[in-house]
Amino acid sequence: MSKQTGTSGQAPDFAGLAGFCDGVPAITDAERGQRCARAQDALRAAGQHALVAEAGATLEYFTGVPWHRSERPLLLVLPAAGPPALVGPSFEAHTLRERSGELRLVLWAEHASPYTRVAELLAEAGPAPSLALEPTTRMFILEGLRRDVPGATLVDGGPIVRACRSVKSPAELALLRRANEATKAALRQVAALVRADMLEAELTELVLAAQLAAGLEQPWALVLFGSNAAFPHGTRGARRLARGELVLVDCGAALHGYHSDVTRTWPFGQVSPEARHAWQAVLRAQTAGIAELRPGQPCGVADAAARAVITAAGFGPDDRFFTHRLGHGIGLETHEDPYLVRDSQVLLVPGMTMSSEPGIYVPGKFGVRIEDIVAVTATGAAEVFGPRSVSLDDPFGA
Amino acid sequence: MSKQTGTSGQAPDFAGLAGFCDGVPAITDAERGQRCARAQDALRAAGQHALVAEAGATLEYFTGVPWHRSERPLLLVLPAAGPPALVGPSFEAHTLRERSGELRLVLWAEHASPYTRVAELLAEAGPAPSLALEPTTRMFILEGLRRDVPGATLVDGGPIVRACRSVKSPAELALLRRANEATKAALRQVAALVRADMLEAELTELVLAAQLAAGLEQPWALVLFGSNAAFPHGTRGARRLARGELVLVDCGAALHGYHSDVTRTWPFGQVSPEARHAWQAVLRAQTAGIAELRPGQPCGVADAAARAVITAAGFGPDDRFFTHRLGHGIGLETHEDPYLVRDSQVLLVPGMTMSSEPGIYVPGKFGVRIEDIVAVTATGAAEVFGPRSVSLDDPFGA
Repeated sequence: MSKQTGTSGQAPDFAGLAGFCDGVPAITDAERGQRCARAQDALRAAGQHALVAEAGATLEYFTGVPWHRSERPLLLVLPAAGPPALVGPSFEAHTLRERSGELRLVLWAEHASPYTRVAELLAEAGPAPSLALEPTTRMFILEGLRRDVPGATLVDGGPIVRACRSVKSPAELALLRRANEATKAALRQVAALVRADMLEAELTELVLAAQLAAGLEQPWALVLFGSNAAFPHGTRGARRLARGELVLVDCGAALHGYHSDVTRTWPFGQVSPEARHAWQAVLRAQTAGIAELRPGQPCGVADAAARAVITAAGFGPDDRFFTHRLGHGIGLETHEDPYLVRDSQVLLVPGMTMSSEPGIYVPGKFGVRIEDIVAVTATGAAEVFGPRSVSLDDPFGA
Repeated sequence: MSKQTGTSGQAPDFAGLAGFCDGVPAITDAERGQRCARAQDALRAAGQHALVAEAGATLEYFTGVPWHRSERPLLLVLPAAGPPALVGPSFEAHTLRERSGELRLVLWAEHASPYTRVAELLAEAGPAPSLALEPTTRMFILEGLRRDVPGATLVDGGPIVRACRSVKSPAELALLRRANEATKAALRQVAALVRADMLEAELTELVLAAQLAAGLEQPWALVLFGSNAAFPHGTRGARRLARGELVLVDCGAALHGYHSDVTRTWPFGQVSPEARHAWQAVLRAQTAGIAELRPGQPCGVADAAARAVITAAGFGPDDRFFTHRLGHGIGLETHEDPYLVRDSQVLLVPGMTMSSEPGIYVPGKFGVRIEDIVAVTATGAAEVFGPRSVSLDDPFGA
């Protein structure tokens, strides 16, 4: 084979999606400065001397610097007062400077300790500093700080990180809104191209391409046909679509780093009465869950409300067929705090964003999941980003 | 545009590479059993009750289960005696069972604590167990274990993990050898296709395709032309190749999970005398470094030997132009222990595998790096996997 063309020679025209994400600004340095100030207020209130985060979403949240985790630490040191600094490998100085703009950079040579640089930065804080550590920090970094920062106490920085990241600003809400609207617009166009005998892999490619055409980055998609969808995160196979099956597509992408995450399940031809019944139960469960996403309400309540609907429809009890939690927070990460999970006492706050994604999975038969991203608002009525599913005949909404 | 064909219509024929990786068996369950037994011996010798590792290369090393890290922990619990167990999310039970074969699986529901399951598994060890933690374990998992495993002491499991993983078995050496030979064969074929005005991105695609054609998985490539190569990990641009420039390609892939990592730098047309001089110094430095890769020798010696050659050639002192360490261990991860870095007192042992990759980076002008993967042997003469660079006229060797 010396030449390859697109999917079965059919290269779909997603031109209608072009420009969909235009006009939504990325997060500004000024906003990142406000984020640091808020974390510094929290550090002072807690009597802690600095927040330390390694490469990842939290470091990017405060600095705008995307970076890969490796054996060479890149560390954000945000002192309780004064400007933040990045401590990074000296041989990456050029790339780091390109990405970090005006931020203070402190470099460590290959044979030196990054943690000694952290100690130097914290010298002003006095002896025995209390360091709030980002909760995904790896153990070898904790050990290095313990070894090289004299008298340091390492405490869980989770509360500070969550207080900042889980409540979204207007700019963050605008990005999440548009990203999710774009993924839904892309998915609606792709659904029109579904045909018998199509491979899951072929539909996956279309979902990726449509999201890129809409101006999103880093697209991903999980496509499952028929009984393959009975396992929530799938067993990605080379299954071909047959009439009478449900199509489940879980997909998303990013806009200036903020993520979409959408699942739609729809019929290809006529599906079984049991599958119809399950689909309708999932939609009602989603509605019941969303109704509980109000300020002051514990996160566990929405999960319980959705689960009760599914149990009442005959798919209970508990997590028998609805095997996972109702949802997860979303922002710079696809999964982040807060989580809508049974018994969670985390209280909802206006500006929190999360998925509401009930599902019913019947092994050997089918899987249904419907997922939308929702924002908690001060009015008490949650905002859903983009149209919801309406019915099996109108799975993509207006 | 309704149709897309391959790179500039030219779809290269890499048929000569087909089957290159055939016949090298993957790691067997029996070998993984021996790995567990070795770690258990080390646990007992250290008076520790279990090794705990979350998803990642170490968990895969002992279990064969590849898994993504997420907010939901998957934990290997390897007790000092008795069979290992995996503690994972119950809603992923099907996928976990598919991947874990005969391994004991202990599931935690979405609203429950994985760490309580770990405590139950360790109940036989008696109260207050001493747990050796894999060094990349994230802080929130350490906190969860502290909270839910009564009286647990968490200690650094790095020594046990390194003692196992850094010394390769004959089966691992065979996989690393073939993977690196395959990447070199692929790169040699691709080099013949380089032409003026080619984009870095186009050459990247060819390097990926050739490695796939050779039977490798997860290929990656970093392609840098001319002065773009002056930054070791690059500023990936859309630069086009001009005559008189050096081409630097750093690339690799995996064979049954074991990685290749090869860098070649070669001239396109006639390069400057300074670039020729630097290239030759880098090759001599690599030779000097490899000569020090003997059992019993501290890792820092090879780095010093290579650096001395580069300094003597006028590109010193220290890390001025050779800005990074000499090399890194390689196996299930591209970068793993041991590291060939200045002052390292880690002693080399037969079966350790690592890169030897000196470089000279002159900002605004050029970058040179030559990288091969090497195994320490009992004879004292290190084995290089695949042909080395010979000269600027023969950069790919025999």
